[in-house]
Amino acid sequence: MLGDNSTGKEFTITTFGESHGKIVGVVVDGCPAGLPLSEEDIQMELDRRIPANPKIVSARIEKDKAEILSGVFNGFTTGAPIAVTVENRQIDSSSYEAIKNLPRPGHADYPAHIRFGGFEDYRGGGRFSGRVTVALIMAGAIAKKLLSQFNVDVLAYTRAVGPVKADRKFSTEEIRKNRYASTTRCPDFGCSEDMEQAIVDAKAEGESIGGVIECIALNVPAGVGEPLFDSLDADLAKALFNVPAVKAVEFGVGFAISEMKGSESNDAYAMSNGNVVTQTDNMGGIQGGLSNGMPITMKIAIKPTPSISKMQKTVNLSTMEDASLTVNGRHDPCVVPKAVPAIEAAVAVTLADHMIRAGFIEKVLERKK
Amino acid sequence: MLGDNSTGKEFTITTFGESHGKIVGVVVDGCPAGLPLSEEDIQMELDRRIPANPKIVSARIEKDKAEILSGVFNGFTTGAPIAVTVENRQIDSSSYEAIKNLPRPGHADYPAHIRFGGFEDYRGGGRFSGRVTVALIMAGAIAKKLLSQFNVDVLAYTRAVGPVKADRKFSTEEIRKNRYASTTRCPDFGCSEDMEQAIVDAKAEGESIGGVIECIALNVPAGVGEPLFDSLDADLAKALFNVPAVKAVEFGVGFAISEMKGSESNDAYAMSNGNVVTQTDNMGGIQGGLSNGMPITMKIAIKPTPSISKMQKTVNLSTMEDASLTVNGRHDPCVVPKAVPAIEAAVAVTLADHMIRAGFIEKVLERKK
Amino acid sequence: MLGDNSTGKEFTITTFGESHGKIVGVVVDGCPAGLPLSEEDIQMELDRRIPANPKIVSARIEKDKAEILSGVFNGFTTGAPIAVTVENRQIDSSSYEAIKNLPRPGHADYPAHIRFGGFEDYRGGGRFSGRVTVALIMAGAIAKKLLSQFNVDVLAYTRAVGPVKADRKFSTEEIRKNRYASTTRCPDFGCSEDMEQAIVDAKAEGESIGGVIECIALNVPAGVGEPLFDSLDADLAKALFNVPAVKAVEFGVGFAISEMKGSESNDAYAMSNGNVVTQTDNMGGIQGGLSNGMPITMKIAIKPTPSISKMQKTVNLSTMEDASLTVNGRHDPCVVPKAVPAIEAAVAVTLADHMIRAGFIEKVLERKK
Amino acid sequence: MLGDNSTGKEFTITTFGESHGKIVGVVVDGCPAGLPLSEEDIQMELDRRIPANPKIVSARIEKDKAEILSGVFNGFTTGAPIAVTVENRQIDSSSYEAIKNLPRPGHADYPAHIRFGGFEDYRGGGRFSGRVTVALIMAGAIAKKLLSQFNVDVLAYTRAVGPVKADRKFSTEEIRKNRYASTTRCPDFGCSEDMEQAIVDAKAEGESIGGVIECIALNVPAGVGEPLFDSLDADLAKALFNVPAVKAVEFGVGFAISEMKGSESNDAYAMSNGNVVTQTDNMGGIQGGLSNGMPITMKIAIKPTPSISKMQKTVNLSTMEDASLTVNGRHDPCVVPKAVPAIEAAVAVTLADHMIRAGFIEKVLERKK
Repeated sequence: MLGDNSTGKEFTITTFGESHGKIVGVVVDGCPAGLPLSEEDIQMELDRRIPANPKIVSARIEKDKAEILSGVFNGFTTGAPIAVTVENRQIDSSSYEAIKNLPRPGHADYPAHIRFGGFEDYRGGGRFSGRVTVALIMAGAIAKKLLSQFNVDVLAYTRAVGPVKADRKFSTEEIRKNRYASTTRCPDFGCSEDMEQAIVDAKAEGESIGGVIECIALNVPAGVGEPLFDSLDADLAKALFNVPAVKAVEFGVGFAISEMKGSESNDAYAMSNGNVVTQTDNMGGIQGGLSNGMPITMKIAIKPTPSISKMQKTVNLSTMEDASLTVNGRHDPCVVPKAVPAIEAAVAVTLADHMIRAGFIEKVLERKK
Repeated sequence: MLGDNSTGKEFTITTFGESHGKIVGVVVDGCPAGLPLSEEDIQMELDRRIPANPKIVSARIEKDKAEILSGVFNGFTTGAPIAVTVENRQIDSSSYEAIKNLPRPGHADYPAHIRFGGFEDYRGGGRFSGRVTVALIMAGAIAKKLLSQFNVDVLAYTRAVGPVKADRKFSTEEIRKNRYASTTRCPDFGCSEDMEQAIVDAKAEGESIGGVIECIALNVPAGVGEPLFDSLDADLAKALFNVPAVKAVEFGVGFAISEMKGSESNDAYAMSNGNVVTQTDNMGGIQGGLSNGMPITMKIAIKPTPSISKMQKTVNLSTMEDASLTVNGRHDPCVVPKAVPAIEAAVAVTLADHMIRAGFIEKVLERKK
Repeated sequence: MLGDNSTGKEFTITTFGESHGKIVGVVVDGCPAGLPLSEEDIQMELDRRIPANPKIVSARIEKDKAEILSGVFNGFTTGAPIAVTVENRQIDSSSYEAIKNLPRPGHADYPAHIRFGGFEDYRGGGRFSGRVTVALIMAGAIAKKLLSQFNVDVLAYTRAVGPVKADRKFSTEEIRKNRYASTTRCPDFGCSEDMEQAIVDAKAEGESIGGVIECIALNVPAGVGEPLFDSLDADLAKALFNVPAVKAVEFGVGFAISEMKGSESNDAYAMSNGNVVTQTDNMGGIQGGLSNGMPITMKIAIKPTPSISKMQKTVNLSTMEDASLTVNGRHDPCVVPKAVPAIEAAVAVTLADHMIRAGFIEKVLERKK
Repeated sequence: MLGDNSTGKEFTITTFGESHGKIVGVVVDGCPAGLPLSEEDIQMELDRRIPANPKIVSARIEKDKAEILSGVFNGFTTGAPIAVTVENRQIDSSSYEAIKNLPRPGHADYPAHIRFGGFEDYRGGGRFSGRVTVALIMAGAIAKKLLSQFNVDVLAYTRAVGPVKADRKFSTEEIRKNRYASTTRCPDFGCSEDMEQAIVDAKAEGESIGGVIECIALNVPAGVGEPLFDSLDADLAKALFNVPAVKAVEFGVGFAISEMKGSESNDAYAMSNGNVVTQTDNMGGIQGGLSNGMPITMKIAIKPTPSISKMQKTVNLSTMEDASLTVNGRHDPCVVPKAVPAIEAAVAVTLADHMIRAGFIEKVLERKK
């Protein structure tokens, strides 16, 4: 915080709001003029945050309604900053007062308390709640609309939930059509059922589980990125680690590359229908910090939700003694499904920014007639 | 590039220079006044780039000599920008002219050509060469000197080289003493010999190999970081992905967390000698984007050097036809050892910046008497 | 626009909203945690925008009501971003449709049309309206509250309205007490009546007039500023020129210094009660881009409101022919009185930012007991 | 300082070096690839800093020689950062040791001492010396070369030196041809002789004098600027106030506008050869923070050099008592002539940045054949 709730250089976003405050919102500054944009565009992405199956999500079901406050006129962006907010409803802060001196393990409570001197809003994680991804997703919706004008598509989906893995390869079409049709955001419906069961089981135990999300970005032209220090992979990774619960990020084959030989890992170039392509994509579409024109591929590890019903050891920050804690608030036993649209948003926002920076998107789009 | 060769908000660095140009340099802006600093401090880190064993490095042995050009007066930093440069010597650009239209697989050549319209300096990778880590390491030396005043220590070391892994746990003391005494930067000398052999073998085959580096930062106080969007893990990841050849980054247990349960992954708090500590460090010392006071731990995947002696497939950017290529320039069969001080520098620069931002380092240090 | 509706490095503000849109708002990011802050603090400054005398202002009387949406908890700032908005009411856009292709002389209409490709919101000046100073004033209210904890005071007042000048010296107390008690914001009530008459006369003629505002900042400690390129005077001037209608800025004696000799213009130092002071303040309290501990003094020229009732020559951007135009919208015959709190806000926001940057304000204020 | 020696968003410059250190230098980051650039381009601007007549300048005659260290390959910019330095020669620091506790009135000595805790380099003004304009001028030379590809021209010249004023209107051609042919940078040679005499007289008295510089920028297209908060006038003013000795800046008719009526001050539009023009330029070519396509005109007040030979009152910062001081170092009796190319550089750098930001300059220029 403290001056740092913004990101991006040309397509910049500034988020605000807390879990139990009045609103969560975002200002998108630098979206080119002339982009058709409606509240429906944003609402559609927002709705993807909440899986249809209530068994696998928190009891707090937020009927979030996005409202555009500025920057759009006659259905098109004007080039002025676009502010979008949603109200917070169904807030129940009652369970947090009792534990305000008992930092929840795995959450930001303790370091935030040290950093903000006790002034932080501790209700429901306050500024550190997963709830703030609502702002990111709304910005992402605008970024996606912009990218769609240039045929760039960002698709994330669930690869693993706890021990359940979807190991086979998915076609782009399968991912595009199925991911949000499945409650766990896994394009394989059978596998998704197993994932759902794993989540239900964890909840029954008072436990939580994590997982792995994969994300691909299609049709990003070669030459996007600003090495150094705004390499495309560096900025994508930064955006991804800003999504709560992310603990690891890899591009292309990732850690596996450390055991390959150069002749195996190098993606050889070839001509294909007059275009330069690579025949493998071990690099994940990024070389030397610049996109190479191939799909950009990332894998992201999501930790188990820190909030669990089981009793946990902690300390009392008021008495500075050992203590124990049971978290009674509403919480998701697995945040992977909710994280999928947030991952897409993080990637879309970063790509929109970098495509403008690299000169692939003009600051005024030609009016579509 | 293009306005983006700087990073950091308070402790900022701007790098410049190309592999085969006159110099490589860096401007560090925002280093507090009153830090004792000499060219020796910088030279020491620079010397760590070149392993003692010539068998495992490129034939280009650079006797780099750091020169401080500004910002230091009477042995102390003044608060003004500190410019440091090294001259490039032993430059042999002869082999690059022949392949300037044949982008080397795995390198930035092709996307850089698209992006910079053919104006890029293609000699030795130009601005995209691993050579530019010299600038990062010099900035890192200043950051480390600053951090050392606050007892913060950054230690990176080699965990794996190709198939050879150092699997046991190392003590902090072992890492600190041994890492730069071993040619591969692995604290286990026996294991280091195996790694060295793997590098020598790869070279003999005309191949290259990658590896894994681990990095820990000690004594970072709780509360450092700016969520969102300058979360400490986000900015560390960004810095790490800006080091050439990095393809994956994880904090704490990393990807393994995706298979843990919440009760296992949460680091429970406890009091220890009046301090709040955690008994495990699955989170890698960062929760909610803020340091929690425990060691910060990261693992980084390094890809095999893209330059190999074997013939590779590529395209001719002039004729737009398939082509093949043999890279004859001098190159390292494995960049892992050289990357270790660069990883330390990336982490140190990020921590220096964030500790100033979080208010743990003042803008004028008290003069040590 | 386009990514640039933010300013400040530590105390940063991002504004959004248009004259005839739903809201005008601001996000203040980087306000230290622990500052007592209420909607009343903001409302008080906002009310100062509207002089009590309806004869001298636009027929659009906006009963602006500030609403804090985030960043405040239990009456104190939390360190998280503070969003504040006001709704736009009494909007009458009817007169703008007829003239959308006839750029009003002196306004941003024409260059905005070129820049934003016709997508700009042209109603009431849209994003370029003086209405957006509402956002600046709200941010300024927060900055002033912060500065007040450190005894720093920012006082602007009207020096001249058209031909009517207040030439005598005012005491700080007189300025503080009288400026907002006078409808023209001139601390001399007699002079203010003359100014009021000049405004009424201009209105009667279908004309508009400008004026001069003076601003002083008291108790800024020596050493605030970041030369170069964020010199205190440079950043103050930048903030001032961002207030609509400002055409000139001078510090201290300003242009008159060009005719002085060095022995006259230099402000000699002397000790006074153990403090270093200067006996004159020709420099306006800033030397070499840094505050010197004396009052910071600025003079600002305000142009006549571009909107006048008289017929004016312009061009038709649709037919690209000469045209003429009569502006029928509601408008102020003189914006000087409304500009006074905006000038204070611009200065306060800049000082808050620079005092944090220079280390004079910590990122967490001690809780007042 | 402290992280702030950079300016610009797309065309960014970072300066470093002190008056009596090894070098003065600048890194220009974000200059588009494909601009023809040589050391001669930079040297030509640098030579303009030193008027031919030694009677009116400091005894320190610096034969500055610009050296390009990076970012240029085969005669064209590459898109990578361009570092340029000059060595400091003829340094005589002997006179500064005696007065290091006696801050010179009008200089940055005292506030810099407070800010940097006594660690600042006090020799010859150190980082605060007019000498650092060398870095600005070198960056300006690159900006001018870039702007010249788009027919944009920046011309500054001397309007007044102390009491001697050049009051008549000058043609663009007269300014372009004569300004650097005259030792005072006044396009009227007769007037320049009077100015020269005024400087010689001031020097003889142990005094110094200031003056007024005017600057015009030609052929800037309509629509350049980012309101708010990077309005074109705001950023130009910021750049100008970062030039040492500047105390006031006005656009167009400046302060005089405060006495005009709206019907007089508004610049009416008209068609001229198919282009939209204004028939007057009271606004100085900028409306609503955006260029309007007309010449941009500024007037800048320069204070007398603070260094004078006469005895001055000051304080002793070691004993905290009143003291007196005679400055014996070499110094210019009038910095106006030296400031002229610095003003041009400040304006050129700002325009280059903003023209890229507004989309008028691409990030790769077409190769000239």
